[in-house]
Amino acid sequence: MSGKMVAAVESGGTKMVAALSRGPGEIIAHEKIPTTTPKETIYRLVEFFDREQSVHGKAEALAIGTFGPADLEVGSATYGFITSTPKPDWSQTDLLGPLREAFGGIPVVFETDVNAALFGEATWGAAKGFKHSAYFTVGTGIGGSLIVDGSLVHGSGHPEMGHMRVTKHPNDNFGGVCSFHGDCLEGLASGPAIEKRWGKKAEELPADHPAWVLEAYYLAQACVNVLTITPVEKIILGGGVMHQEQLLAMVRQEVIRLVNGYLKLQDAGELVVLPQLGDHAGILGCVALGQI
Amino acid sequence: MSGKMVAAVESGGTKMVAALSRGPGEIIAHEKIPTTTPKETIYRLVEFFDREQSVHGKAEALAIGTFGPADLEVGSATYGFITSTPKPDWSQTDLLGPLREAFGGIPVVFETDVNAALFGEATWGAAKGFKHSAYFTVGTGIGGSLIVDGSLVHGSGHPEMGHMRVTKHPNDNFGGVCSFHGDCLEGLASGPAIEKRWGKKAEELPADHPAWVLEAYYLAQACVNVLTITPVEKIILGGGVMHQEQLLAMVRQEVIRLVNGYLKLQDAGELVVLPQLGDHAGILGCVALGQI
Repeated sequence: MSGKMVAAVESGGTKMVAALSRGPGEIIAHEKIPTTTPKETIYRLVEFFDREQSVHGKAEALAIGTFGPADLEVGSATYGFITSTPKPDWSQTDLLGPLREAFGGIPVVFETDVNAALFGEATWGAAKGFKHSAYFTVGTGIGGSLIVDGSLVHGSGHPEMGHMRVTKHPNDNFGGVCSFHGDCLEGLASGPAIEKRWGKKAEELPADHPAWVLEAYYLAQACVNVLTITPVEKIILGGGVMHQEQLLAMVRQEVIRLVNGYLKLQDAGELVVLPQLGDHAGILGCVALGQI
Repeated sequence: MSGKMVAAVESGGTKMVAALSRGPGEIIAHEKIPTTTPKETIYRLVEFFDREQSVHGKAEALAIGTFGPADLEVGSATYGFITSTPKPDWSQTDLLGPLREAFGGIPVVFETDVNAALFGEATWGAAKGFKHSAYFTVGTGIGGSLIVDGSLVHGSGHPEMGHMRVTKHPNDNFGGVCSFHGDCLEGLASGPAIEKRWGKKAEELPADHPAWVLEAYYLAQACVNVLTITPVEKIILGGGVMHQEQLLAMVRQEVIRLVNGYLKLQDAGELVVLPQLGDHAGILGCVALGQI
């Protein structure tokens, strides 16, 4: 059975992914648009959807999963805005408003990119069938998302999982890159942290580089903290840094070591996983959000 | 308006608190019973309730908030049992069963002591009116509880907040007391950790003792981790260790230092608080649970 036709936008700092879709097997139209000025970017999004809807029919919902910080609070005066980003031209920008207007009165959903990705995985991917799950995206920053009892957890500017505290590895003398906290999770384990610590981009470091021992150490702590604070049954690790094929197994090993038999972790291999929808988790998550 | 009459039991490792109550102002009968063998302890609880019900009328619900580990999963074969505790005589003991039988067919609730305490605070205390809140009890162990969107968060044996990872203070050479993890939160900041580190019980250490700098450092990390992973609006710190009057202010200071402006923490004094119901949070929480 086909779902609703959704106009989905995965809104990133460097590019927008736009799609008309009814679900994973039914991506009817699809385009990548560079994120330039808000005016130009939104114009090109509207143009794409106008063109494709004239061929494929009208979207029944609009769903946006965006980079942040963004105002997700329905009813707030700046609902749908990108708020205080350092990204040129985008600070205090209404992203939802002009798109909503272009679509007329159809229902809209406005979420963070990580919430969309987790929702996609919970609908069609690795977290399907589980009540409680979490998603970390490990890339330019570290973002997190949480589903409890089947619902995305919301709060003012939360969750901010990238900024949790972690214990420094004894072999790590790096001070971290977070401008607020230095050595919080994002400060020590994001892509820019790896690059600054080792003087090379993450993707240029070989699989046996000591960088990955540190990375696994920090990501495992993040997993264990989520696991002790919430009853998650799946923790999905996505984002560019997780493209390192050796890394997932190293994180799982470290999670087992840290938990040390306390939680009934029969198999960290089933608990900590990659996104099944891969790099499409975000855009498909928007489609899933638009269908509810 | 009076609530339902609830037979409430706060079940602790050293004593049981039993009450017939309709709410904070209406504790109709109340007794403390030492926790000896299961048989004797349960017998005395039943005796108390029989006697008081014959005077004050029948309870409409039975609610138990217990020490653990306990099986909280409705429908499980060992639902209502204390499970694998090292406490003599209590391992694999059916606590709910004989009490439920003594009360005939009235509705029952079986929760952890910390869940009950948080529910009490969310109903009548410091977390009243907030959608998301957490409770730490800092005493013989460190227990945690979480409410998201107004509901207690459950999972198999979760949350296990006492076992989250924390960063060691540079002045702390103590290895910790947790038999699973050594230096997890409970291993470094529970009452027994304080006693073993300093050779004195927590309540015997003066207010300006360096113990409290370490304690605030660890509890603040716990608060910040909960705050980054969930959107809690109140974090309640209860338990014997929090009876140290200077400690709350020290934790708040440390939370502000760690957050360092990132989250919109206008006032850590409103975020991190003591239980308003004080040491009655647990038993009143049972009353609240029995009324839903």
